[in-house]
Amino acid sequence: MEERTEIADLGEFGLIEYLTKNFEIQNASTVLGVGDDAAVIDHFGKQTVITTDLLLEGVHFDLMYTPLKHLGYKSVMVNLSDIYAMNATPTQITVSIGISNRISVEALNEFYEGIYAACEKHGVDLIGGDTSTSQKGFIISVTAIGEVTPDKFVKRSTAQNGDLICVSGDLGAAFLGLTIMEREKKIYLENPKIQPDLEGESYIVGRLLKPEARKEIIEFFEKNEIVPTSMMDVSDGVSSEVLHLCKQSNLGCRIYEEKLPISDESRRAAYKFGLDPTVCALNGGEDYELIFTLKQEDYDKITFNEDISVIGYMTEMEAGSKILTKGGNEFPITAQGWNAFTK
Amino acid sequence: MEERTEIADLGEFGLIEYLTKNFEIQNASTVLGVGDDAAVIDHFGKQTVITTDLLLEGVHFDLMYTPLKHLGYKSVMVNLSDIYAMNATPTQITVSIGISNRISVEALNEFYEGIYAACEKHGVDLIGGDTSTSQKGFIISVTAIGEVTPDKFVKRSTAQNGDLICVSGDLGAAFLGLTIMEREKKIYLENPKIQPDLEGESYIVGRLLKPEARKEIIEFFEKNEIVPTSMMDVSDGVSSEVLHLCKQSNLGCRIYEEKLPISDESRRAAYKFGLDPTVCALNGGEDYELIFTLKQEDYDKITFNEDISVIGYMTEMEAGSKILTKGGNEFPITAQGWNAFTK
Repeated sequence: MEERTEIADLGEFGLIEYLTKNFEIQNASTVLGVGDDAAVIDHFGKQTVITTDLLLEGVHFDLMYTPLKHLGYKSVMVNLSDIYAMNATPTQITVSIGISNRISVEALNEFYEGIYAACEKHGVDLIGGDTSTSQKGFIISVTAIGEVTPDKFVKRSTAQNGDLICVSGDLGAAFLGLTIMEREKKIYLENPKIQPDLEGESYIVGRLLKPEARKEIIEFFEKNEIVPTSMMDVSDGVSSEVLHLCKQSNLGCRIYEEKLPISDESRRAAYKFGLDPTVCALNGGEDYELIFTLKQEDYDKITFNEDISVIGYMTEMEAGSKILTKGGNEFPITAQGWNAFTK
Repeated sequence: MEERTEIADLGEFGLIEYLTKNFEIQNASTVLGVGDDAAVIDHFGKQTVITTDLLLEGVHFDLMYTPLKHLGYKSVMVNLSDIYAMNATPTQITVSIGISNRISVEALNEFYEGIYAACEKHGVDLIGGDTSTSQKGFIISVTAIGEVTPDKFVKRSTAQNGDLICVSGDLGAAFLGLTIMEREKKIYLENPKIQPDLEGESYIVGRLLKPEARKEIIEFFEKNEIVPTSMMDVSDGVSSEVLHLCKQSNLGCRIYEEKLPISDESRRAAYKFGLDPTVCALNGGEDYELIFTLKQEDYDKITFNEDISVIGYMTEMEAGSKILTKGGNEFPITAQGWNAFTK
């Protein structure tokens, strides 16, 4: 029988101590970590970047098909992604959790293993947090802190007319991963004896369950002396994000359908489900890639990087925000991204 | 009829924009606030202090008797209290919320009015956050950031044998405020026609619903060149906190019952409910006062401050942690503080 320790056996302070005892400080800027009223960090000579995200069971994740270790990893990644999107380096995180008595200490251990793996991979310290019971569902709130050389951070509002629009990696896979997991869940609920059929879908499922914040893109920028004119991460779908860049920079844009990077696995999965791969790439969320704009003269610096695609360019606001299809048609881009407040 | 706007009418980005549009930046260190992937702060030459707290409906607050404006105010205060407890000055906060469709935009407005009032009073900037739907209950996650002169922060683990143990303000009132609100709630649920009887209880109810983080104590320290040897805030009850100081400093302590600061209003309320005022002061939570230790030679510096009480002193660990009663008896101190994980 699986071991099960009740949270109440440890108590709140015991729990924090238990969960964080194996974390070793990696950053010199971490002066004081877990175990006091607050943590202390020293970014002397750097600017501090800070972001926070709430992940709620039943809204952002489904524990029926989300392993807790993956969930811990992803909770960190979605925040680190925001730090990288500022052209900054993440250094510390805090993690707060609200847990129902459905969750055992062993389950929480798995969750923290994922957090630990994410921290280790990205050189980040866990420096604090809060734990509480919740009346319903698993509640996760992560805050990430990073550092950036003064005034080298990249905003959303500073794209220029004529700039190239680029994205890292490929788009739409996480949405297709979600589609397949939701289908398998439905089949399982109708007939628990049927084993899930995820044959050949590991790429898209992995993109959903274990996204990776794009550290190497920021490192590539630094190495090649590239400073994007604007940047954000792709969490709600690229059409929604490109409209943010346009709105905040007071510009329009043209996106080429044929330039959208879509993996073979995603195309195959899309056709299997009767979905248009382009629509998945434009509107599917949770890719956690970076979208950024570059001066045209920087084009040569990125051509040899196969992980970056130029998908269009910025225009004057009056020209609108449009997508040019393979068939030669022009359509206005609409944000059909995931809206957490849809009625 | 009261106006009611649905959250869905604004959408996630509209909501953030709407809720934060009236916030003006107060700190020079706030380089970039709400509206991008992350905020940017510049504590050049200072160390950054960071803390986070989760407040969950049904666990930490009851909307039946908690006005949303007070709740917003309190959500900020409980975090600022942790920053002051490090001997630091709060400068920025992020606020994330998860809301069910039970909450209208007008209700959220009230909540943010309280947040705004707290920020204004303490000179703090709101620089970011996240919003989401929740399946059940109102979820609040606040992270506070502060600054401190390098290595001037005060930890819990650095008290010395013989140091005086001091607390600010008075103790137990918030717990008695909670007791009366729970009684009134019960009466109301049994008979909704009976009006709540809070006559003469405004002090203890105010201590529960609208606590105040002790900025002036930190300012007093600075003005009088006092650096406590250890410090934390009183959120779980002073007996629980004093045991933290002892454990983390590897010491014991003696606390004098007769020295515990208890307001007349609290004594009266305690007797009315048949409770021992001393027990309320020791074990009642949510006072958000500061408990700290001082070198004996600093005693003269605090005698003229009526808002600070010396309640005991630190001893060697072997002497244990004990309370000396008015009757001359000695009992071990036990942490009966509020445990969020009690079965």
